[in-house]
Amino acid sequence: MFTGLSAFPLTPLAADGSVDEKAFITLVQRLVAAGVDSISPLGSTGSYAYLSREERARVARLAVEHAAGVPVMVGIGATRTREVLAVAEDAQAAGVSAVLLAPVSYQPLTEDDVLGLYEDVTRELSVPLAVYDNPGTTRFTFTDELYQAVAALPQVASIKIPGSSGLTSARVEELRKMLPGHLSLGVSGDGFGAAGLSAGCDAWYSSIGGTLPGPVVAITRAVQSGDLAGAAAESARLQPLWDLFGKHRGALRVIGTIAEHLGLVSAPSLPRPIRGLSGADRAEVIAIVTRLGLTE
Amino acid sequence: MFTGLSAFPLTPLAADGSVDEKAFITLVQRLVAAGVDSISPLGSTGSYAYLSREERARVARLAVEHAAGVPVMVGIGATRTREVLAVAEDAQAAGVSAVLLAPVSYQPLTEDDVLGLYEDVTRELSVPLAVYDNPGTTRFTFTDELYQAVAALPQVASIKIPGSSGLTSARVEELRKMLPGHLSLGVSGDGFGAAGLSAGCDAWYSSIGGTLPGPVVAITRAVQSGDLAGAAAESARLQPLWDLFGKHRGALRVIGTIAEHLGLVSAPSLPRPIRGLSGADRAEVIAIVTRLGLTE
Repeated sequence: MFTGLSAFPLTPLAADGSVDEKAFITLVQRLVAAGVDSISPLGSTGSYAYLSREERARVARLAVEHAAGVPVMVGIGATRTREVLAVAEDAQAAGVSAVLLAPVSYQPLTEDDVLGLYEDVTRELSVPLAVYDNPGTTRFTFTDELYQAVAALPQVASIKIPGSSGLTSARVEELRKMLPGHLSLGVSGDGFGAAGLSAGCDAWYSSIGGTLPGPVVAITRAVQSGDLAGAAAESARLQPLWDLFGKHRGALRVIGTIAEHLGLVSAPSLPRPIRGLSGADRAEVIAIVTRLGLTE
Repeated sequence: MFTGLSAFPLTPLAADGSVDEKAFITLVQRLVAAGVDSISPLGSTGSYAYLSREERARVARLAVEHAAGVPVMVGIGATRTREVLAVAEDAQAAGVSAVLLAPVSYQPLTEDDVLGLYEDVTRELSVPLAVYDNPGTTRFTFTDELYQAVAALPQVASIKIPGSSGLTSARVEELRKMLPGHLSLGVSGDGFGAAGLSAGCDAWYSSIGGTLPGPVVAITRAVQSGDLAGAAAESARLQPLWDLFGKHRGALRVIGTIAEHLGLVSAPSLPRPIRGLSGADRAEVIAIVTRLGLTE
């Protein structure tokens, strides 16, 4: 569940704002066909923070139904613990293999708040949980001490670590020493996927993998077979794509544009107030993914 | 509506996590008795980001019902525009005099997203709207250009500006020149209320005013009568209270503690994952408000 390539599909919307279930199912089926190791709907890329409890339950059920046995992990974050617990219950009823929880906030959270959140939630869980450390959306920064405290809770099986140039093999070793042996370390931030896996992370939690699984599965398999140079070269080749994520405040707007361009989802696919890219920004994304051979 | 002292009451919770309606009504009645100029439930202090649509509609109705004719403004923010529109509809049906909208985010928003949000919402509104510029919770920073674009929309009647030492009379004059003449400028950040009003702001959007209206109404009346020195002296006397807000990541945890200590709400009154203050932190808050004579 917590090793290899975990792909985060979009939750595409229809013109009336409802979930485009047909398009979502197609995305899930593409991931199965591409041989990803797990599927993670309702992550940040899956717009979990914009959907109702009912929509989230439905998406979780559709994912499990169409994953053909590939493990499914869904995001259960919400501003309020009460809502997190309700969504977690729905996800488990849908048959997910794991859940992913970020410390979503409105009021800035303290370390005590966050530890308490994971305590309250893991107490009620029967499936494993991945800790979703995503400061770009939660604006909360985990300390190593908090990693340790949260990792000691029952059901906690993985930490999704924000990718950075600091995620070296020395850092991964340091984390291994301070954290329980069974804990999986996963890297996110697609531009750091190859480096994170090569540094010793168990998993790559990939946004772009939910829409373009081919190249990221290939990079993952390269690392797993010991071809670190090949993985690094392919990731470097995709640098113009990673740069777009930095330019557009994260991966979501870029990936939405790609999925729309490929006809996988209809435009606009993202929840307002988020506007998809338009004009020159949109043209640039399409030009880059075309040039990189990602639209074939 | 958008002048003088607007007081932001808590939305206190009962032990089972539901809204403590009786305590909320008591808070509203205290504000009426204290002579505030308007009441703003469901602001950040009123935990709007943690409540369901139904709870928000109910709180808006209770506020209007018990405000004895004092104008009521409620927060309508949500991560998704669809939800903002639904909450706005409920608020208007409840009979509020105005709504307050912050660009709540999960994915970081662009200026275009935020302008689009205000366009989408004001198009549907029949009551005036105050723009809620609150980077501490939304992590979005308005530029002057965006202030101008949003202020030009129909229904936009006020901007709630984050208080800072930069909110001088020169800055207020600068804002007046660039913004429509009818627009009310309001200061938030209670430690900057006296200075903001003295610098020429029309309104003070006060968190502490929702629980301890006495001192902030007095400061507001002092400024309005031209006694700027008296207002500044009283605000300076309360500096130990303002310092607590800085220490505890905003006003909410401190105000929750004060309201619990005064027996206005039962503990814990705040929505999890937010933990109330405990131990030495709690004792310090109680000691300071007692020493300042605010518990009488």
